[in-house]
Amino acid sequence: MEFENDLQNQLNFIKEIDKVKYINRKTKLFGSDRNENDAEHSWHLALMAIVLAQHSDEPVDLLKVIKMVLIHDIVEIDAGDVFLYDNELNHNNTDNERLAAERIFGLLPANQTADLLSIWEEFEEGKTAEAKFARAMDRLEPLLQNLSNNGGTWKEFDVPYEKVYEKKSAIKLGSTNLWNYAEQKINESLDSGLLKKAKRN
Amino acid sequence: MEFENDLQNQLNFIKEIDKVKYINRKTKLFGSDRNENDAEHSWHLALMAIVLAQHSDEPVDLLKVIKMVLIHDIVEIDAGDVFLYDNELNHNNTDNERLAAERIFGLLPANQTADLLSIWEEFEEGKTAEAKFARAMDRLEPLLQNLSNNGGTWKEFDVPYEKVYEKKSAIKLGSTNLWNYAEQKINESLDSGLLKKAKRN
Ligand SMILES: [Ca+2]
Repeated sequence: MEFENDLQNQLNFIKEIDKVKYINRKTKLFGSDRNENDAEHSWHLALMAIVLAQHSDEPVDLLKVIKMVLIHDIVEIDAGDVFLYDNELNHNNTDNERLAAERIFGLLPANQTADLLSIWEEFEEGKTAEAKFARAMDRLEPLLQNLSNNGGTWKEFDVPYEKVYEKKSAIKLGSTNLWNYAEQKINESLDSGLLKKAKRN
Repeated sequence: MEFENDLQNQLNFIKEIDKVKYINRKTKLFGSDRNENDAEHSWHLALMAIVLAQHSDEPVDLLKVIKMVLIHDIVEIDAGDVFLYDNELNHNNTDNERLAAERIFGLLPANQTADLLSIWEEFEEGKTAEAKFARAMDRLEPLLQNLSNNGGTWKEFDVPYEKVYEKKSAIKLGSTNLWNYAEQKINESLDSGLLKKAKRN
């Protein structure tokens, strides 16, 4: 009886998260003008975590990192995708995302709701080794995509070098190695004109 | 030096697997006429494995199950998607997939190539507890999608009840609980007309 209730709740969750496949990001696929959706993005981050784990500064529980990146955007079913460089929404969307997490993870049996809520919160807070490495993956993927797309969203939305540098610095919190690579690519992008310094007002 | 070589190889792999997002499956998203692609499919299976693990008949190493489902379709970059009910290709595509696995996982540093090749082979062989549960996820997702799509690919490609029952029985090898659910739904689909018995020749 408990098994049957658990399974029905789990199937409700499994069906609900299908909506993640319809949430388009601003970023485009590698060398492409097709937007990436959140399910594809989350899949890619999980594979990145698997093959890049050796570059984490601290040892990480890889299973937890993978869970973090697989679920981190599920809240966008209710709260919508927030562009990394959208200052206003990045500061004001927290309540919506918290409600979304409670509703969507709340479809699951209680112990699983608690588990996934806690993993999602840990990712959002960004303090543990796992959260820092997972967040590094989340910053690195669109950097690689923009590099392959002649500047991609940086050019499309006129994001200046300083802003990209500041936002991508989060990679450093999880991995010195990956940040060294990313910093070099960001600086090369300034030299090559893919990125431009902010205009003084 | 070794770090730099590793990272460049890993980044080559990360870029290569972006192609998985362009491989469309026959199956459509839940309640939709939009085809699912392999990246979305693999993401969904990983989430299913996380929330359904309690239903595995044998205890499983969840990290390994997740790796299996995340990588299982990467070979389709070279070998193409094979429809579950395509008898000819299902028997003859093995060599192509093996070559694809060697080429694509071969982009990684040698230890990672060996690791992912071994996990992919274990999934394909379907003998360990992890492989049986991962394969159950791979059979369950399109069943749920077809149920939500008024028969979906079963109707579209005239797949008879007996064939669906036989192919989906693989779920039983990983999970009695999930097979009980699936079997009931398949039999209900016969009663409701979503599935029809094969015509006698
Ligand atoms: Ca397949």
